[in-house]
Amino acid sequence: MNNALHKDLIVIDGLQYSNWNRAIFKQLHEGGVTMVHATIVYHEQTRDTLKRIAEWNRHFEMNADLIMPVRSTTDIRHAKQQGKVGIMFGAQNCSPIEDDIGMIEVMRELNMMIMQLTYNNQSLLACGCYEAEDSGVTRFGQQVIREMNRVGMVIDMSHSGERSTLDAIELSQRPIVISHANPLSFHHAKRNKSDHVLKTLGESGGLLGFSLYPFHLKNGPDCTLNDFCDMVARTADLMGVEHIGIGTDLCQEQPVSVLEWMRNGSWSKEMDYGEGSKANADWPKPLAWFHDSRDFPTITNGLLKRGFSEENVARIMGLNWLNFFDDALQPLPQSAR
Amino acid sequence: MNNALHKDLIVIDGLQYSNWNRAIFKQLHEGGVTMVHATIVYHEQTRDTLKRIAEWNRHFEMNADLIMPVRSTTDIRHAKQQGKVGIMFGAQNCSPIEDDIGMIEVMRELNMMIMQLTYNNQSLLACGCYEAEDSGVTRFGQQVIREMNRVGMVIDMSHSGERSTLDAIELSQRPIVISHANPLSFHHAKRNKSDHVLKTLGESGGLLGFSLYPFHLKNGPDCTLNDFCDMVARTADLMGVEHIGIGTDLCQEQPVSVLEWMRNGSWSKEMDYGEGSKANADWPKPLAWFHDSRDFPTITNGLLKRGFSEENVARIMGLNWLNFFDDALQPLPQSAR
Repeated sequence: MNNALHKDLIVIDGLQYSNWNRAIFKQLHEGGVTMVHATIVYHEQTRDTLKRIAEWNRHFEMNADLIMPVRSTTDIRHAKQQGKVGIMFGAQNCSPIEDDIGMIEVMRELNMMIMQLTYNNQSLLACGCYEAEDSGVTRFGQQVIREMNRVGMVIDMSHSGERSTLDAIELSQRPIVISHANPLSFHHAKRNKSDHVLKTLGESGGLLGFSLYPFHLKNGPDCTLNDFCDMVARTADLMGVEHIGIGTDLCQEQPVSVLEWMRNGSWSKEMDYGEGSKANADWPKPLAWFHDSRDFPTITNGLLKRGFSEENVARIMGLNWLNFFDDALQPLPQSAR
Repeated sequence: MNNALHKDLIVIDGLQYSNWNRAIFKQLHEGGVTMVHATIVYHEQTRDTLKRIAEWNRHFEMNADLIMPVRSTTDIRHAKQQGKVGIMFGAQNCSPIEDDIGMIEVMRELNMMIMQLTYNNQSLLACGCYEAEDSGVTRFGQQVIREMNRVGMVIDMSHSGERSTLDAIELSQRPIVISHANPLSFHHAKRNKSDHVLKTLGESGGLLGFSLYPFHLKNGPDCTLNDFCDMVARTADLMGVEHIGIGTDLCQEQPVSVLEWMRNGSWSKEMDYGEGSKANADWPKPLAWFHDSRDFPTITNGLLKRGFSEENVARIMGLNWLNFFDDALQPLPQSAR
């Protein structure tokens, strides 16, 4: 019965950065995923972002039976109807726009729907969660927020510092997201968020995607499904059940060299271990109950077992994301600017 | 007699950003300038920086009778001996290295001798003096300082915020410069520096180049030579006469479009007027006593008249810069790293 429910759901994963190939697309399909927000760039600048888009165009061409590009929220519904997996483009750093405000609309025209204002470090726009100090959103950052609001590109503060995140929520005319992170109260990690941030995010109409990356979870790879679902329940109480979703942060089949590049880009001559350490430099061991996208029904079942109503499970598993995007991807009406 | 003294001096201008052409090279020559630190890039990134270097190579080819590239401090002395004007490359922003620590040594190999860690805005490295808040030198910034120290590239904090400047002085193993600015006590402007910064800079072996850009001067374009020389004298008392020089910030024959680009780069959809205002958007009127590089002897004469000894005038007009570069451009010995 539970699997039957899962099959009917709109299931949206708020973030993955897998080493995309046909086998991974099949897993998404098998797991009943309607749409995944795919990180297409980390540190790439403008020109290399176009290269990543070209690679995706090739994926779409070669795997048209399994996946389709998401160019609007209508496409998410079409994906569900057609039994395909919709792919939404996003950026985990603001490097695709380099120092050029004009690149925001250009990227949006290329279907980049979501962009983080910072990765872990300070950017031209704001501060990342790994800097010692966070001076908030910059002069350029204020302009970027206005422009992202205007063209309908979603602001994501998953890797930003607390002050920058609160600034972005306040400065943005439209709700923003934290696509992949967990509450700090559940597990203490630089990437997780304080109750104050989460409450403010919920009140502003924003959305949190719960991460299944072991470094963001209590007891790491040994985190239980029960503990995870408890966290979801507590966060629903804090933020409201309309403001939470899933953002697995699944990074499948990526070699350690990619993890090192994610952490170090080209900015460091020393090794930065990010959420890991010298003794624990590799990808974390996956969760026993969430290996890959085929395990999405497990989350649905876990939430039902935890006592969420079918309606609320449907919200958490995808409807909240869908409702959010329905508005967020629209350009701002001229009158509202 | 005074002009005779000027003729014998090593005269170094710590910064110009003119629209370089043969007429301007002749003025430098006529004004007895031995070397000028020429800003070759503002907001240009790596590829466009190479374009600017190629343009300079063409200048060197076409004007070999007047100018020569400075590839070491020996070249400054050669320029003096040969009666040519040495050109030292510098960057007013860290955009030439983009997000890549490896570009520092590459740029140094191309004779980029000086680089600012920020222009007016926040950068990946530190904060600029136009941001509301300054969170200091970043994680990437710390690595860049170490690398600039290692390869012998001079750190310039002229356009940085106070805290970032103090951070850079402390973090850098080698003295740094503020190539073109004045004391805040002389004229209140975002670009001018507090006595605390200047004192710390002097104590650390650093160097301040006095700006002749009217926006940095008391009474703007009406600032008198006497007032300027008084400021020099007071700053000599504050910092020590070995720690001051000239950095005119002369921007000759640049159209307003370049001023707008300096102020706005491509980060803003609105007009930012920088040190000017909407009602005063153009280049400032030049000083009556310092129109262009032919007026360098006027400064020498003014300092003599103010009571500086010939020895100290020689220091301020160029020897301090020369001594600074003698050390600063050497790569750090392996043992000191």
